[in-house]
Amino acid sequence: MTNAHVIENVRRVATCGTGAPLLGTAMRELGVLADDPCVAVRDGRVAYVGARKDLPAEFAKAQRIDGKGGVLTPGLVDCHTHPAFVKGRAEEFAMRLAGASYEDIAARGGGILSSTRAVREADDATLTAQTTRNLLRLRRHGVVVAEGKSGYGLNLKDELRQLAAIRDAGELADMHTVRTCLAAHSLPAEFRGNDARRAEYLRLVVDEILPAAARGGLAQRADVFCEQGVFTPDETRAIAQAAVRLGLQVTIHAEQLHLTGGASVAAQVGAASADHLEFLDDAGARAMAAAGTCAVLLPGSTYALKMDRWADGRRLIDMGLCVALATDFNPGSSPVANPAFVMNLAVMHCGFMPEEALVAFTADAAHALRLPAGEYGVITAGARAAFALWDVDHEREIAYYAGSNLCEAITCPGWRS
Amino acid sequence: MTNAHVIENVRRVATCGTGAPLLGTAMRELGVLADDPCVAVRDGRVAYVGARKDLPAEFAKAQRIDGKGGVLTPGLVDCHTHPAFVKGRAEEFAMRLAGASYEDIAARGGGILSSTRAVREADDATLTAQTTRNLLRLRRHGVVVAEGKSGYGLNLKDELRQLAAIRDAGELADMHTVRTCLAAHSLPAEFRGNDARRAEYLRLVVDEILPAAARGGLAQRADVFCEQGVFTPDETRAIAQAAVRLGLQVTIHAEQLHLTGGASVAAQVGAASADHLEFLDDAGARAMAAAGTCAVLLPGSTYALKMDRWADGRRLIDMGLCVALATDFNPGSSPVANPAFVMNLAVMHCGFMPEEALVAFTADAAHALRLPAGEYGVITAGARAAFALWDVDHEREIAYYAGSNLCEAITCPGWRS
Repeated sequence: MTNAHVIENVRRVATCGTGAPLLGTAMRELGVLADDPCVAVRDGRVAYVGARKDLPAEFAKAQRIDGKGGVLTPGLVDCHTHPAFVKGRAEEFAMRLAGASYEDIAARGGGILSSTRAVREADDATLTAQTTRNLLRLRRHGVVVAEGKSGYGLNLKDELRQLAAIRDAGELADMHTVRTCLAAHSLPAEFRGNDARRAEYLRLVVDEILPAAARGGLAQRADVFCEQGVFTPDETRAIAQAAVRLGLQVTIHAEQLHLTGGASVAAQVGAASADHLEFLDDAGARAMAAAGTCAVLLPGSTYALKMDRWADGRRLIDMGLCVALATDFNPGSSPVANPAFVMNLAVMHCGFMPEEALVAFTADAAHALRLPAGEYGVITAGARAAFALWDVDHEREIAYYAGSNLCEAITCPGWRS
Repeated sequence: MTNAHVIENVRRVATCGTGAPLLGTAMRELGVLADDPCVAVRDGRVAYVGARKDLPAEFAKAQRIDGKGGVLTPGLVDCHTHPAFVKGRAEEFAMRLAGASYEDIAARGGGILSSTRAVREADDATLTAQTTRNLLRLRRHGVVVAEGKSGYGLNLKDELRQLAAIRDAGELADMHTVRTCLAAHSLPAEFRGNDARRAEYLRLVVDEILPAAARGGLAQRADVFCEQGVFTPDETRAIAQAAVRLGLQVTIHAEQLHLTGGASVAAQVGAASADHLEFLDDAGARAMAAAGTCAVLLPGSTYALKMDRWADGRRLIDMGLCVALATDFNPGSSPVANPAFVMNLAVMHCGFMPEEALVAFTADAAHALRLPAGEYGVITAGARAAFALWDVDHEREIAYYAGSNLCEAITCPGWRS
């Protein structure tokens, strides 16, 4: 049989359902197979999940992949990352350790603006190579689907270059990417100083950058950093509404450092998700629940910023929202490429159970990106043949081996086509 | 040339000195080569470290190893681990998340005693296989030298079985192991209840287990868990003195959960190290400094136990002690197999600079184990050919990509002989 594989010798398979997001108490129901299970793949899609003794005869001669006695889960879906950066910011990390806040550093021309300078100065080949390197850093921790944001270009040319780099890097890294235009990440330095210049940048984003990003599917989504000192709720709403008119999905950086109302704006515009949410209040959470806006929590950044307030995942799960986790991988506020570490933080600090943390990085993350149901983040017939294999005895242990990487990604030929 | 290799295409080589421990301000002086450096190896030992243009002609035909543009450091030395466990304790992890303390769980027969039951029930093959798996979990994060403790046997037979498993697992995992008898890890359940039984166990440790462990080099070191509710300073001293008489090195679990005086006992008996030290006081630190006892800090356990008190690495470095870091990898208080995560914690919470954290996992960790100077934890002529290759641009970034694993271990044939 052509292009058929069987993953066998696995201790357990956690399917994470069949495609619908798992909400509330269903987040603990992982659909685990534990009686000598195997997974058969044909032409890049899952064809069979079940006991090895019942494997259909057509797979008798399929190529075998050794699961090494580990736990097989869906390949991880990282639904919030900033991978198109060209260098780390370890110096600023040292400044923060010495007491400077993220906002202090931004005010001194560091932070996002520092990454912006580096992206603008990098040629296309460098930008693509570094973006590929960053995606591969995620892949070595089990990520096969990555959302990737621009936001270090902050002008028409460089925002588009970032999005193209993410697209090309996904091909090179054998990962599926979902691309998000984050031109509204920060007001670029050359537009600062007075309200007219600020308005001019907002016009540039709405009238030029977002339309160009939407063209030909270069980006599928738009994002805005709604925060004190960045973009206001009103500005956020205007940008998001423009994105909706262009047919883009919307996601919002909301309630990270202060309560500003970004989550409610996200709900109003029908955003797919609102992300961060450390300072989310009840009104915002209820608005999100009513609108079907997913909550994407990013405790890696809470950790790296040494914040003492963590997003309350427990409350959001219990309210029945679709709750996802993501790395927020970026060179400033979350130099964290390891989903298992994020799951550990979520369990230690955000009230998740280990099973919930896994669903939040698979089935529910796929829904946060509005990926077609049953294709990503689950192991079910028809799903894309992309998996994470864990050197653990039980899926509970994924969030337990803190800060360790016991995972490898497994993909079968054709899984992205 | 037989058995010669050249590691090239590396951005930087951080040599970490030439073998003497790096103390005080010297901990920031990593001896970095950045001008197209390379490392040449012959028969498992480093033969040349320097610019590629000056590579001796005899290596012209040596086999090339591609450094992929990364940063090369000495292979990591993990000087405090408990790898001879046969299963994880994710259930207790969940109990701790729900509010139970490590001491609560121990009092309910969990904790160390739970791992002890599992080790006693495991046959030799299982014990060795699981220990090998645990060492390989460390190796995939860059560890090539691991200290390994017994302490889940808690009787003559099973302590020796654990030590033998660590020895055999080191061979199977291609790692150098240093073995430590930790029969004084906990009072076994069958010896609890009255002082006479307690004294009987102490006698068993001193008169039978330690002598048997020392025989034939099965263990090189002895350790005692000096803590409220475990072993008192007087008991610790008696056991340590017996170990010294047997020619064993001594190390002490000290001042982890309370200030008990274990660090001063360590200094009195000339211990190689005192480990944990969250509650260390000035008197203990001064005693250690005077005795040349190294401080081994284990912030992975501080993190996993959600303690709010971290060991004060800054003060110990500034006092001029030899300060090492280690994972404390174990299934209870530190399910952390990633040294880079421990370095990140040390930088975030224990006052280390990133360069100091790297030295604390290489040159200074080798000294904490009293390994022969210049053989492990450094890249210098004559050193063992075991390296860690990092997908980063600068050695400062090792402690910055928080909770990520961007490292692979590289060893050359013959490096352990």
